[in-house]
Amino acid sequence: MIAAKGYAAQDPKTPLGPFNFDRREPGPHDVQFDILYCGVCHSDLHQVRDEWGGSIFPMVPGHEIVGRVTAVGSEVSKFKVGDLAGVGCLVDSCRHCENCSDGLEQYCLNGHSQTYNGTEQDHKTPTYGGYSNFIVVDEAFVLHVDERLDLAAVAPLLCAGITTYSPLRHWKVGEGHKVAVLGLGGLGHMAVKFAASFGAEVTVLSTSPGKEDDAKRLGAHKFVVTKDPEQLKGVQGYFDFIIDSVSASHDYNMYLGMLKTDGVHICVGAPPTPSQIVAFSLIPGRKSLAGSMIGGLPETQEMLDYCAEHNITSDIELIDMKDIETAYERMLKGDVRYRFVIDMKTL
Amino acid sequence: MIAAKGYAAQDPKTPLGPFNFDRREPGPHDVQFDILYCGVCHSDLHQVRDEWGGSIFPMVPGHEIVGRVTAVGSEVSKFKVGDLAGVGCLVDSCRHCENCSDGLEQYCLNGHSQTYNGTEQDHKTPTYGGYSNFIVVDEAFVLHVDERLDLAAVAPLLCAGITTYSPLRHWKVGEGHKVAVLGLGGLGHMAVKFAASFGAEVTVLSTSPGKEDDAKRLGAHKFVVTKDPEQLKGVQGYFDFIIDSVSASHDYNMYLGMLKTDGVHICVGAPPTPSQIVAFSLIPGRKSLAGSMIGGLPETQEMLDYCAEHNITSDIELIDMKDIETAYERMLKGDVRYRFVIDMKTL
Repeated sequence: MIAAKGYAAQDPKTPLGPFNFDRREPGPHDVQFDILYCGVCHSDLHQVRDEWGGSIFPMVPGHEIVGRVTAVGSEVSKFKVGDLAGVGCLVDSCRHCENCSDGLEQYCLNGHSQTYNGTEQDHKTPTYGGYSNFIVVDEAFVLHVDERLDLAAVAPLLCAGITTYSPLRHWKVGEGHKVAVLGLGGLGHMAVKFAASFGAEVTVLSTSPGKEDDAKRLGAHKFVVTKDPEQLKGVQGYFDFIIDSVSASHDYNMYLGMLKTDGVHICVGAPPTPSQIVAFSLIPGRKSLAGSMIGGLPETQEMLDYCAEHNITSDIELIDMKDIETAYERMLKGDVRYRFVIDMKTL
Repeated sequence: MIAAKGYAAQDPKTPLGPFNFDRREPGPHDVQFDILYCGVCHSDLHQVRDEWGGSIFPMVPGHEIVGRVTAVGSEVSKFKVGDLAGVGCLVDSCRHCENCSDGLEQYCLNGHSQTYNGTEQDHKTPTYGGYSNFIVVDEAFVLHVDERLDLAAVAPLLCAGITTYSPLRHWKVGEGHKVAVLGLGGLGHMAVKFAASFGAEVTVLSTSPGKEDDAKRLGAHKFVVTKDPEQLKGVQGYFDFIIDSVSASHDYNMYLGMLKTDGVHICVGAPPTPSQIVAFSLIPGRKSLAGSMIGGLPETQEMLDYCAEHNITSDIELIDMKDIETAYERMLKGDVRYRFVIDMKTL
């Protein structure tokens, strides 16, 4: 084992603090890399505070991880020492079920290994995430990162990026489509960038009138304040797709009314409590309420390559490790444009 | 105008009774036909009792209408006197919006004309349905019915048939798919027949163990009693599609758990009250909760032709017009296998 340093939550109530733990020596298929930057995802906060239940402590959060390779196992063919590398929400999966075979490891039928707050495929060894100085991951779950992009701003692509890229690709969103992005946060701002890049007309739906300039700078063509009934009238039956990044409770029926016939409302944010759905919001118009979760490994690499080619990264605010609790508090208030990233040299 | 006879509800509380009213003389594009049989749809009951609100009285229900042509307008090209004819849930639409142009008149953006409890496209003249001796409808909304099929058993195809045929076709259900049919009533029994005919493996999900023999006679391969937790375990993550014909309140989340990755739960029944939906029922597995409403005119004709070719009709119980209230009461208890059809010569 190798001694590692990180920042961990010891329980749901105590602020995160320094934590020493061990990671495995790289095996034949493993890549070891120094973590340079780690993004701060809203789900870090949910899990640290055990808001979804079942949290495993001590917990080293972080699943938007980028850095530089320091060691590779004897069988590793994809990476060499000195390469940039990234790890997202998954560090392993069963690799043989129907979904894994299809490159949909995020939907592994036997249970994937989350990067943190999970276990390795032995279903015992806990996983520790990216709020740490290095990580050891099987090369099958390590992504290539292009040297051309700002590395700190790449980190959020590993979760916020792929979570929005994947459904846009799955539902073949592009030219001729009208897409609404509901909520302009970490996920939403990436959805705007991707949907606009794919050629769709993008409208941001937000409760915050103050975000209009930003929305347009990010690539949105229109901006609708959802608290203004007059503005809502103009988008009834208007959109082909809604990418819903909101994780607070909200009324799906209102948004389904903004969809065209055959429109799809895609949830990538998960409200903590059940929402009410009226069947008549779906039936007249053959509409769908769908969900999508991160993305598989092949698609995550495709997304990173696309970003390198099209110069797409996240808008970030770089923070020191010690300021993580302040970042959480600001994130709760939506006070971040649009993703906190930890500079891991401050660990 | 021509004097017509029917059975009408005068208000939401009074039993249906004889009613005299006028229908228009056939115009150049109209087909007039004597109604021989009219199916009894659960929505007749909902609307007669004003359970969805906005009901228009007096109301002559009935939108599963078949009969024989007695007169045609000067410009009519599709029908001649003596032909069999059918009319479903629609008697007109704007005919120029995007959806009408695509043959999706059921989703007309300017509002279609329901066969009853609606208005003609002048948005004033009330429409009266099939519990009557004849009807006059523009030929664009009249369907051809094949002489080979049992005419009384064809009537329910005009609503129950197309309502289940359309989503199965839209989502391309066929060989290699596992399909669940939730609820074995008027819609459900047609969904079983069509899904089996299209080559899918069909499972009926029902609260009534007594329906198993019937389900298998109709074409189902499996039968699951949804009250039995042991039987439910066997279908977790099992289905590609669920056709949900239940119009009583039920838990979508439980059924979404029975879907595979990318599975679609299609609502064709509409519970009267909102249901709770948990985003985590959709997100891990990229599942969809969708709706579908009847079908357009081209697809309804396609369905009738398919039924003629494959000898598919509804299982019916023929009733006299005077027994309609008894039929409603039995329908409410699920005591019908599987559709009441009124023999209109008893009017």
